[in-house]
Amino acid sequence: MTIDIKALESSLLAGKRRGLAKALTLVESRRPEHRALAIRLLTSLYPKSGQSHRIGITGSPGVGKSTFIEAFGKFFLEQGHRLAVLAIDPSSPKSHGSILGDKTRMDELAVHPHCFIRPSPSGLSLGGVARRTRECILLCEAAGYDKILIETVGVGQSETLVSDMVDEFMFLQLPNAGDQLQGIKKGILELADMVVVTKADGVFEQAARQAVVDHELALHFMQDDEDRLPVRVMMCSALEKKGLLEIYDLLQSKLMELTQSGRLEKRRSQQREQWFVSELNDQMMDLLLQDRSLKKNVEKLTTQVIQGTLSPTEAAQQVIASLGWNAGKE
Amino acid sequence: MTIDIKALESSLLAGKRRGLAKALTLVESRRPEHRALAIRLLTSLYPKSGQSHRIGITGSPGVGKSTFIEAFGKFFLEQGHRLAVLAIDPSSPKSHGSILGDKTRMDELAVHPHCFIRPSPSGLSLGGVARRTRECILLCEAAGYDKILIETVGVGQSETLVSDMVDEFMFLQLPNAGDQLQGIKKGILELADMVVVTKADGVFEQAARQAVVDHELALHFMQDDEDRLPVRVMMCSALEKKGLLEIYDLLQSKLMELTQSGRLEKRRSQQREQWFVSELNDQMMDLLLQDRSLKKNVEKLTTQVIQGTLSPTEAAQQVIASLGWNAGKE
Repeated sequence: MTIDIKALESSLLAGKRRGLAKALTLVESRRPEHRALAIRLLTSLYPKSGQSHRIGITGSPGVGKSTFIEAFGKFFLEQGHRLAVLAIDPSSPKSHGSILGDKTRMDELAVHPHCFIRPSPSGLSLGGVARRTRECILLCEAAGYDKILIETVGVGQSETLVSDMVDEFMFLQLPNAGDQLQGIKKGILELADMVVVTKADGVFEQAARQAVVDHELALHFMQDDEDRLPVRVMMCSALEKKGLLEIYDLLQSKLMELTQSGRLEKRRSQQREQWFVSELNDQMMDLLLQDRSLKKNVEKLTTQVIQGTLSPTEAAQQVIASLGWNAGKE
Repeated sequence: MTIDIKALESSLLAGKRRGLAKALTLVESRRPEHRALAIRLLTSLYPKSGQSHRIGITGSPGVGKSTFIEAFGKFFLEQGHRLAVLAIDPSSPKSHGSILGDKTRMDELAVHPHCFIRPSPSGLSLGGVARRTRECILLCEAAGYDKILIETVGVGQSETLVSDMVDEFMFLQLPNAGDQLQGIKKGILELADMVVVTKADGVFEQAARQAVVDHELALHFMQDDEDRLPVRVMMCSALEKKGLLEIYDLLQSKLMELTQSGRLEKRRSQQREQWFVSELNDQMMDLLLQDRSLKKNVEKLTTQVIQGTLSPTEAAQQVIASLGWNAGKE
């Protein structure tokens, strides 16, 4: 396809869904010529990014993530926000369970003119998912979306990744906490900025209240971090539309406090630095695999490594030597 | 320190603990001159590696990992094996909870002449932990250890990492599975080659039996993978020394089957390829940060990225351009 980057940029900046969708497809492409164009587009749009509120949402399968996002997303839209929902699903070659693969799970959001839903592309490595998601956020922001929800499936590695790119990380939990609390991965709870106990309705309401208390207790024993605000535990029922307003209000007031205290800027500048390091890695690898003779050499060495006749360490050294770059020459 | 690599290598190959310990310290060092020596040592010892049985062990805090490793490790030693125990603990800057920091947790193993325990070094990134652990395995194998246990704390990201470097991944679970099973991260269970229900004694014995059944059921609904053997669920009591022999026998027979069917070699060759890719990344970054003028440039760009005046994508491009390597020139 021939791509007119200028036209694409104008369409996206004008808030055209088609422009945004095409731009996202471009940054997700793995063809080298598309990558070069994607980098041009991203560089040009970068100054127009950063204006949104970035919110990560995670929770185990069955916790009701999509129901929550559907109900909560509508709140955002009613308040006049423009909402983008992105999914992170670093599906292993084994599990092909993808989230948000089916937009019908969020049928009301999917048809709303101010809501943009993007499923997770499949077949990417964890690094590939990180790069693609950061770039999606940038494009959605440039297109004028001011609330961005990033949904991830409850596997530890993707949660670390999401917490590295959002302002606020919400951890959804089922109301049957009591016994389960000891099963919660401490490492994951530490990433949370807010815990939301779901399904707080009917026969589960009492259990939900208990779960809130249990979580508050558990969080009480965790270390304070002055760069972050205290973690709050909320409960809600997407079914009965209860608790959603309280969560929205809390999110808004936290955003204001994060901004005014300078914590938001501090967190984001750390995230930009992490992005730079991983982007540097990605671009070096891109380049390596684009150059025909280098790629051939890498493939030859890879074969020897796979066969076990050459150590990975030495093979890497040989590639580095073949680059002939300027390092160490002055 | 001055390091005589040849002498270090001889000492290690002769099975001297002091030689192995010094070699491990060398590969864990982040000083560039040590890194160069470490690479020489690793390259030279590579042909002498690969002869061990590599076993990963994970489980949530409280599941009894160290008690299990202490009891199970003694079994290995009684059977005449030489055992190395390594820990992976990618402790976030937030949680400083390190595992194996205290050898006294495994006091009987720690003093056994045929057992070598290495705690996790702190302050490494996840990538740094992966590199260091692969290299530790290589050194322990060259030093004659034929069983290597790699313990990791129950956070998703480190589990993926461990499963990428072992032959067999054991997932320890508490006997109170029933309700908890839905809380298990599907992604983590998918990495397991064997599930072991711990603390199957006294009042918990019945619950443990039920947990075995529940896990078998859950695994039944997961996809088969012809590259791997069926996942078996076992139970044991480290306290009453029950079930350990059965697990040992199963491990040994699985190892034989994996070897004879060619699955072991296939898994390991995939792991070698992954190692090569990440080592290539690591070495490129090492080189970049070693060269004074490149490093200065990277630091300058990093400042701009942190301030938000330069996009991470563009900053990475500028670094790449400054390398002046041969890529794309023919």
